[in-house]
Parts: sequence; structure tokens; C-alpha cells
Amino acid sequence: MSGRVMVVGLGPGPAKWLTPEAAELLAQATDIVGYGPYVDRVPPGPARRHASDNRVEIDRARHALALAAGGAQVAVVSGGDPGVFAMAAAIFEAVEAGEPAWRDLDIVVAPGVTAVLAAAARVGAPLGHDFCVISLSDNLKPWPVIEKRLAAAADGDFVLAFYNPASKARPGQIARAFDFLRARAGDRIVVLAKAVGRPDEEIIHTSLSAVRPADVDMRTLVLVGSSQTRLVERPGREPIVYSPRRWEG
Amino acid sequence: MSGRVMVVGLGPGPAKWLTPEAAELLAQATDIVGYGPYVDRVPPGPARRHASDNRVEIDRARHALALAAGGAQVAVVSGGDPGVFAMAAAIFEAVEAGEPAWRDLDIVVAPGVTAVLAAAARVGAPLGHDFCVISLSDNLKPWPVIEKRLAAAADGDFVLAFYNPASKARPGQIARAFDFLRARAGDRIVVLAKAVGRPDEEIIHTSLSAVRPADVDMRTLVLVGSSQTRLVERPGREPIVYSPRRWEG
Repeated sequence: MSGRVMVVGLGPGPAKWLTPEAAELLAQATDIVGYGPYVDRVPPGPARRHASDNRVEIDRARHALALAAGGAQVAVVSGGDPGVFAMAAAIFEAVEAGEPAWRDLDIVVAPGVTAVLAAAARVGAPLGHDFCVISLSDNLKPWPVIEKRLAAAADGDFVLAFYNPASKARPGQIARAFDFLRARAGDRIVVLAKAVGRPDEEIIHTSLSAVRPADVDMRTLVLVGSSQTRLVERPGREPIVYSPRRWEG
Repeated sequence: MSGRVMVVGLGPGPAKWLTPEAAELLAQATDIVGYGPYVDRVPPGPARRHASDNRVEIDRARHALALAAGGAQVAVVSGGDPGVFAMAAAIFEAVEAGEPAWRDLDIVVAPGVTAVLAAAARVGAPLGHDFCVISLSDNLKPWPVIEKRLAAAADGDFVLAFYNPASKARPGQIARAFDFLRARAGDRIVVLAKAVGRPDEEIIHTSLSAVRPADVDMRTLVLVGSSQTRLVERPGREPIVYSPRRWEG
């Protein structure tokens, strides 16, 4: 049997969000490659496990491609969806820059429930209208590019979702983004959705004028509403946040 | 047992993309409410089926809420993810404008694999960097709002995904969007991903300068790359389309 790379999304955490396709591909794997905490989430089985550190995506991608070139069935695992700020792009970067033979490998990408969908579902329907998804990691792009995109998203009155909003290396990044958006777009509904679907899940309903950047950590998905996004109070229950489908001028 | 509304995403089509959570909620339903073709995709079972036409989302939402207020376990089904241009926003609009008692109903939203994730996975990793998702339906918003968002997305150099790109009622909409983007951003890689995961799936790799609007129908997910998106040729295989994680200035 020829080698193959299966780029698999595990969803945001709980097994209820792991697709049947992802489960089936994991069961076919001879080798599991990924960032340690994601490898740990793969159900037990005989596959060899190759856990690596964060921030070594290209090394990990090359390792997976080399294993597959040698005949292995390699599952490369990411949380959420592998195509959204995760391993799929790294795999294809490695293919483009790597061994010519890698272009002839079977590579399949299995989509998954990405974090913004789980967070949105948890709080209502904030993505009911047009939206933008931005990674705030400036390891991979300079702040001026991030700022240009924040400006564009504000000017287009999109709902915004931030991945990688904070880390120990750049604790001030999200505060800067909130300040920029508030100056550009005025106040907006903000939801901080931490560890959605897990035991330590925490949801904070706030706004650009009231949000505390210290409440944002690397496991938080940040949603910023458009001018149209609404918060509906419910007595004795959490409020609902949603963006109407129809644009009101 | 109290009534409940379960807003469930069925994924883009095949069963391999239906999450375990969605399958479990469908199995608990006494009533299935949705647009006919989606109701038809729910696995057989004893639940009553209430299929309705497209474009009656609010009526359908009110019907579901009324059934739940009467004690039913109501699954409201959408293709893809229910929060992305689908039924979740309609449900919450109906809650906000409807009977006060509806605010006290249990409402759960089960996220799903939305079309753009399946299309992206099918062709590579075009969403590897920041992206915007826009519905081209102008039933719900005027063209100037769409144009403002296209301009913003182009100025921010986002990857773009279009839902609802065409219909019999507005065949010219997508051509207008392509023309606008080409004038604003220059040429870009375009992928037309039709019916991804289904027997009649069709993928067209093209560009803003070469795309034929007649190739776009209502079942097509349209991806437009950023300035950084790349197409990698593979001898004897389909090309790969991906957006590098790192921004190159």
C-alpha cells in the first residue's frame, strides 16, 4: 500500500465534535504526527505517536511527508479544522518547497468543526451575517498587516473572530486590537469564549468599551460583533448573541 | 419533559461530516423542522417531519418555537453549520420578536462542518491565512452593503469565500462581484467548488481574469485567494491551492 498523508481536524475538544471521517482516518493511521496536546486527544490504538512542540509546524510537516514517502499512513492532527490556522497550510508549504516526490503523495484533508463555529453555537448565532476570521499571532505576520485587516474589517462592518488572541510572548496584542477597533468602529458587543466544550469552559459577555484584555488567554476565541449584532436578555438564563440575517440600513 | 429546540447542522452532505452530537440530537427529536432537502437528509426515524420551502425561515423558526413551547423536542436542521447563513439566526430573531415565554425555552445549537471548510479541505488549504465569509444573497441586504464589504475584503487582502453566489433570481450578482474585485485587487486565484462531497462534485481552478460566471450555481462555494494564495502544480494530479501561514511583505 502506498504512503499517504491524512491531515485531520479533531474539532475543538470533545468527542461529540469529531467527525466520522476523522475517526475513520485516525483508525487507518500507522503514524500520528502533531503538537503534543492534540496527539494526546487521539483515541488509543496501535499507531506510532510522534508528538512535537508548538511552533515547529514546518519540521513536523516535513517529518510527516517523509514518513508517508516511506510508505506510512500518516495522520497529521490539529485541533478544530486543519485548514484554519493549523497544519494543512504547513503541509502544503512543505510540499511546495520539498522533495519533488512529495508532490506525488496521496494527501487528504479532513475538515473539522473549527473553534469559531463552536463558540458561535455556544452563545447564539453571532455569525448570522458576513464575518472575518483573523489570527492575531504576529509570529507569522507583522502588526501593520494585522492593523490593515482590522481597519478593513471595521470599515466593512463585519463580525470578527480572533484566533490566537494572546500568548505569554505577546500579552498586549489583544488590548491593542480592542483599542484600534473601538477607535475605528465605536462600541461593539464582545464575547470571550474560553475552552468551549471542555470542563473549564468559560463565557464572558462584554463589549469593546468594557472588555478586560486580561480575561483573554491563548485558549480564548474572541468574537466582536458588527454594528448589527444584538444581545437578547433572558430572565434566569444566559443572554443570546446573534447577528440578524437581514441588514438594516 | 420540557420542550426544547435543537438547531442542528448536518454538514455539507455526506454522513462522514455529520458530527456525533448532531446525530444524537436528531435521534432525540420528536419533530424535525427544515427546508425540504435538508429534512430529507435526516436518517429515518419516528420523528414527525415538517418540511417547508426555502425563504420562509422566520415562519419555520416560529413554528419550531411554538412546537417546543408545547413540549416537543424539535430539531431544526440546516446544511453545513446552522450559524453560518442558516437557521440559527432566524431562530433567535424569532425569539427576540416573539412570545415572551419563548425566552425561557431550552435552545441548543449544534455546530457543523460549514461549506467553506469542506471546500477548502478538498482543494488544499486556501484558508491558511485570514479570511472573510460573505453571503451574496441580496434578498437580505442591498448591493451597496455587499460592495462595501467586497471593497473592505480586497483592501484588507483577505481570502474570500462566497456563500449563495447565484440563483435564478439574481444570475448577474456573482459576475458583478468578480468584476468589482478584479478592478480593486487585480487578478487572484479563484476556485469554484460545487457540491463538495457529493456524487456530482465538481472543482474548477481558475482566476478572477478567467472565471466564467456561468460556471457558478447556487450549490457552488466560491473561493477567491488573497495576494499571497498559491497554486502548486502536481504532475498527473490536481493542483493544490493554499495560503501560506506567514505573510511575505
